[in-house]
Amino acid sequence: MLGNFSYCNPTKLHFGPEALDALAGELAHYGKRVQLIYGGGSIKKNGIYDQVVSILKAAGKEIFEDPGVMPNPTTEKLYEGCKIARENNVDLLLAVGGGSCCDYAKGVSVSAWCDEDPWEKYYVRMEEPANRLIPVGCVLTMVGTGSEMNGGSVITNHATKQKIGHVFGEEVFPKFSILNPKYTYTLPKYQMVAGIYDIMNHITEQYFSGEDDCTSDYLMEGLMRSLLHSSRIAVKDPENYEARSNLMWIATWALNTLVAQGKDTDWMVHMIGQSVGAYTDATHGMTLSAVSLPYYRYVMPYGLHQFKKFAVNVWGVRPEGKTDEAIAQEGLAAMEDWMKEMGLVLHLAELGVTEDMLDGIAKGSFIMEGGYKVLTHQEIVDILRQSL
Amino acid sequence: MLGNFSYCNPTKLHFGPEALDALAGELAHYGKRVQLIYGGGSIKKNGIYDQVVSILKAAGKEIFEDPGVMPNPTTEKLYEGCKIARENNVDLLLAVGGGSCCDYAKGVSVSAWCDEDPWEKYYVRMEEPANRLIPVGCVLTMVGTGSEMNGGSVITNHATKQKIGHVFGEEVFPKFSILNPKYTYTLPKYQMVAGIYDIMNHITEQYFSGEDDCTSDYLMEGLMRSLLHSSRIAVKDPENYEARSNLMWIATWALNTLVAQGKDTDWMVHMIGQSVGAYTDATHGMTLSAVSLPYYRYVMPYGLHQFKKFAVNVWGVRPEGKTDEAIAQEGLAAMEDWMKEMGLVLHLAELGVTEDMLDGIAKGSFIMEGGYKVLTHQEIVDILRQSL
Repeated sequence: MLGNFSYCNPTKLHFGPEALDALAGELAHYGKRVQLIYGGGSIKKNGIYDQVVSILKAAGKEIFEDPGVMPNPTTEKLYEGCKIARENNVDLLLAVGGGSCCDYAKGVSVSAWCDEDPWEKYYVRMEEPANRLIPVGCVLTMVGTGSEMNGGSVITNHATKQKIGHVFGEEVFPKFSILNPKYTYTLPKYQMVAGIYDIMNHITEQYFSGEDDCTSDYLMEGLMRSLLHSSRIAVKDPENYEARSNLMWIATWALNTLVAQGKDTDWMVHMIGQSVGAYTDATHGMTLSAVSLPYYRYVMPYGLHQFKKFAVNVWGVRPEGKTDEAIAQEGLAAMEDWMKEMGLVLHLAELGVTEDMLDGIAKGSFIMEGGYKVLTHQEIVDILRQSL
Repeated sequence: MLGNFSYCNPTKLHFGPEALDALAGELAHYGKRVQLIYGGGSIKKNGIYDQVVSILKAAGKEIFEDPGVMPNPTTEKLYEGCKIARENNVDLLLAVGGGSCCDYAKGVSVSAWCDEDPWEKYYVRMEEPANRLIPVGCVLTMVGTGSEMNGGSVITNHATKQKIGHVFGEEVFPKFSILNPKYTYTLPKYQMVAGIYDIMNHITEQYFSGEDDCTSDYLMEGLMRSLLHSSRIAVKDPENYEARSNLMWIATWALNTLVAQGKDTDWMVHMIGQSVGAYTDATHGMTLSAVSLPYYRYVMPYGLHQFKKFAVNVWGVRPEGKTDEAIAQEGLAAMEDWMKEMGLVLHLAELGVTEDMLDGIAKGSFIMEGGYKVLTHQEIVDILRQSL
């Protein structure tokens, strides 16, 4: 059922092997001062940095370098980026990298001209921006977060051991994103499969809610079935364009607000995973994969009808002559088999989590109320212990 | 597989029982001279006209009435609307009605300030607009065409017996659309099911193309499965909000360019149906339903793999121990059963088509090349004869 909502997603996407050819046209809409945001420098090895810089120079842009964005962007880095943006009065934030660079760019966009501590205002108090925003553009080199077409921005505060995501409105969405599936070929397998599970979990966080019939659920079943098909090809043949292009497109549509329409959403796995990330700095997708199965097996009885649909419509479980619970269990078992096939982390210990951290990780996990079961602190600790 | 493309859909949607509350906020973005476009006056009976007019007046707008848009908007009507828009220098075209009103509004948007015959320039020669455009807003009261979130505009020329659709770029898309599923409750069943089939055919026109694996196909399978589920409820219980809200949302996403990404598309059924419409002025969706089964049964052998997928993934046909052709046939048979259940027109004779018209209708059907078989004139005549 679809109740009252407004939908608008103005981000312009340029997709495909020649997507970067569209960058010059997009740059023409903005002033000449561009803050170039990127990560650890892999874009210098694979040549993307040089291509982007030459396009910027040909467009007569002045480049202000902002490198070193880490996998989980920190408050310290955010303050540093804001200083660069403000002191140079930049006209455009161009993020070249994965979700971390894009999340960080959106953080700088809302924070650079904020008149108080942006961490407190935008991440702790979750306020909406009223100050001047700096437009964001994105050249995506990693797949998973969907940050290229949404308002999400996750920042980590190591001092307080908090990893908080604020989903901003459409005025903070990237104005344009360049999506070339071939840029993702060189990604190490560990990063690729972590991204694949991030996509899957974005969908399940939105799928496992509600009692009613909603077109968004059918769209998500389609996305998940395409994800399973292409992920099995990509993990064996990383340079299979068909599979990698599908994965890139699924990632974008899994988290650009479309499939959330008409739904409550859960996000409890992300809340626990983000807290694990704040303690271990582990790869985001792996923090999700490590806690997912214990979580879903625990909440399954509270949303049995949906877990049954999941088993039949996504995993092809044959329902004939089985109880709803048996069907649902079979679906989760099929998901576990796929996760093993992908080489995903299924135990928190592999991420450096120890028994003594569990209480703190649970305390750091926001309790969400959109899923099938509102968890208590103790239930989160139990799920974490089963995930060790 | 997803090759090179750009995607942007800037239309803002306000959905739900209270969607009209958003109209005042949207009107604030435009000048005070509003051309109010509507059809035969049903909106005066159901009260929507009075609600919209009072919102326009409260917003201090000057209203220029443009009523009488017919189910298949004509060139004469287009010229009339352009005259109203130009002579009153209107700032906004507000279409209140179904796809015909919305298609017509887009026609007036590109044509009002066109310095030559817009029929020749935009519909016969299919040129892109360079002249001033008038922004379009839409309050949707009928479901099916998807015109509320795309650039499509179909105009009929009775003098030349041509019904031509031009799909304009995003600058012609409605700036905003108000989608209240309850507005569709009062629609006669004939119109409702015609709209339901229009939705289905928009999807199949895009689904039946290509040899490769594409996420768009999975999205379309999800949309079709949701359409089957909700259509079966809506046809028995037209005031079932859950079903009608799903149908309204499916219609929008079936034809707002998303599911066409990475695909060639067919549209041959629409070409034949539009030519039937030009001869009979029959309801659009019924012209499509009358020719679909003979067309799909004829082209099925040329795209057998996709018709097999259609049967298994959309209609739940069990493939075990059957030939691909038997599976594909079973899928089309299931579609025929559903079409009968809906009460759709399956014979052109019911729409007033006679044997002597077939050659002319075939001549008036643009030959499309994106599907599994490029038809000859004689093949179209044969399909039309089987549809009689």
